[in-house]
Amino acid sequence: MQTNKEKMLAGELYQSFDQILSTERQEVQKLLYRLNQLEPDNFKEKSEILNLIFKDLGKNIFIELPFRCDYGYNISIGKNFFANFNCTFLDSAPIKIGNHVLFGPNVSLFTSGHPIDVEKRKKLFQFAKPITIENNVWIGGNTVINAGVTIGENTVIGAGSVVTKSIPANVVAAGNPCKVIRKLD
Amino acid sequence: MQTNKEKMLAGELYQSFDQILSTERQEVQKLLYRLNQLEPDNFKEKSEILNLIFKDLGKNIFIELPFRCDYGYNISIGKNFFANFNCTFLDSAPIKIGNHVLFGPNVSLFTSGHPIDVEKRKKLFQFAKPITIENNVWIGGNTVINAGVTIGENTVIGAGSVVTKSIPANVVAAGNPCKVIRKLD
Amino acid sequence: MQTNKEKMLAGELYQSFDQILSTERQEVQKLLYRLNQLEPDNFKEKSEILNLIFKDLGKNIFIELPFRCDYGYNISIGKNFFANFNCTFLDSAPIKIGNHVLFGPNVSLFTSGHPIDVEKRKKLFQFAKPITIENNVWIGGNTVINAGVTIGENTVIGAGSVVTKSIPANVVAAGNPCKVIRKLD
Repeated sequence: MQTNKEKMLAGELYQSFDQILSTERQEVQKLLYRLNQLEPDNFKEKSEILNLIFKDLGKNIFIELPFRCDYGYNISIGKNFFANFNCTFLDSAPIKIGNHVLFGPNVSLFTSGHPIDVEKRKKLFQFAKPITIENNVWIGGNTVINAGVTIGENTVIGAGSVVTKSIPANVVAAGNPCKVIRKLD
Repeated sequence: MQTNKEKMLAGELYQSFDQILSTERQEVQKLLYRLNQLEPDNFKEKSEILNLIFKDLGKNIFIELPFRCDYGYNISIGKNFFANFNCTFLDSAPIKIGNHVLFGPNVSLFTSGHPIDVEKRKKLFQFAKPITIENNVWIGGNTVINAGVTIGENTVIGAGSVVTKSIPANVVAAGNPCKVIRKLD
Repeated sequence: MQTNKEKMLAGELYQSFDQILSTERQEVQKLLYRLNQLEPDNFKEKSEILNLIFKDLGKNIFIELPFRCDYGYNISIGKNFFANFNCTFLDSAPIKIGNHVLFGPNVSLFTSGHPIDVEKRKKLFQFAKPITIENNVWIGGNTVINAGVTIGENTVIGAGSVVTKSIPANVVAAGNPCKVIRKLD
């Protein structure tokens, strides 16, 4: 018999309001509460809290506050990452971010969603699929990335995009839904 | 002679910077200020403040913070409601949310707007029309719902949608502007 | 030999993590930190901090909190301005807002961006172009305005728009990308 956490991490339908997952989220919300109230020049404590929240964190990580996520332990970020104000990472499934990645303000990564089937949704079932952002990607501000999406290396996503399907490497893409506009040279 | 509040609630053009409405918003902003600074495990005070802000609130209400609204007294929410981080409800007209409704992060409900006529806008006239979210609806993160819209029972709105017209029951809809993609079985 | 600040203000590629620009941003982030923690009825201190942050500020300025920007000294706002909750102004280039302008919640003005060229982006080069909002404009909530855009006098931008090119005066425009829907009478 699998726990809800095991089902979540296996990509199966699960219920997030059980005791294990609620407690884990609660612990991270306490860390985020401290993080989001830090004075802007308190770099030392900011770095300590970020290292407590995330699974893996490379060198030269700049995350402007506020920042919000669910669990933190599903988030791996490479070196030289910059995320501007007010990004939201719903990380019920792994979020893997490569090196030299740039996020504008208000970027949202949503690994989790709910079933279309009403009866399952009323029982608060949900699912989660990984999101992968490869090396050197720039994601414009106010972009939404949906569950299961991979953004390929070097690609640029225009501001305000809604990315519902994976986008290949070496392109500029934008829109709602986000589509490839042109290839990079 | 109607007051601006009476005009607002009657769906007529009104000016929101009069003394009655400014004072009412100010009182709610004080409550929201306290709400949005609560420690994440202070469930008791959170529940008390939410009950002071909203007109009606069912059982099992989970609203992740921050949350923002204008007046609060125009918002009714049924049982088993979940709203994720950073939702904004501009409630100059009634916002009525049914049972078993789910909101992703950054969902915005805008009952109010301004006239297209420049001279009226310069005098800070505005209008408001109700928003209704029926039972069992799931609204994906970063969605905007405009004044006068009803989302029908069981319907799913995709993340990042901009809903400018009412959406019927039992469909999946998405996009900017939001359109029906398919019917539920 | 130009400094990065001089390059930034001249509209050339620059690196924002040098000492001068980092220090300037840091000073403004401290002011924004104080601003965004003010009690809702502390109008006096709010007005003082806004006047410290912005280059020019007309009479009758209402900015609902939180509000975020980069430098502040590139932002000029005319009289009778209202911006609702959670607006974000990235002001590496001048942001010039006329008189009688209204912003809904979550409006984002992004004067800055990164080169499409991967090698330049990896070195954290960026560019900035001015954004101009002329008199009597109303910008609906959750709208994104990209670098270099001008919104002409009296124009209305629908909620949730992504404005990638300038929009003329006296129109209603909306969508992603934002396009003119109709002319005003």
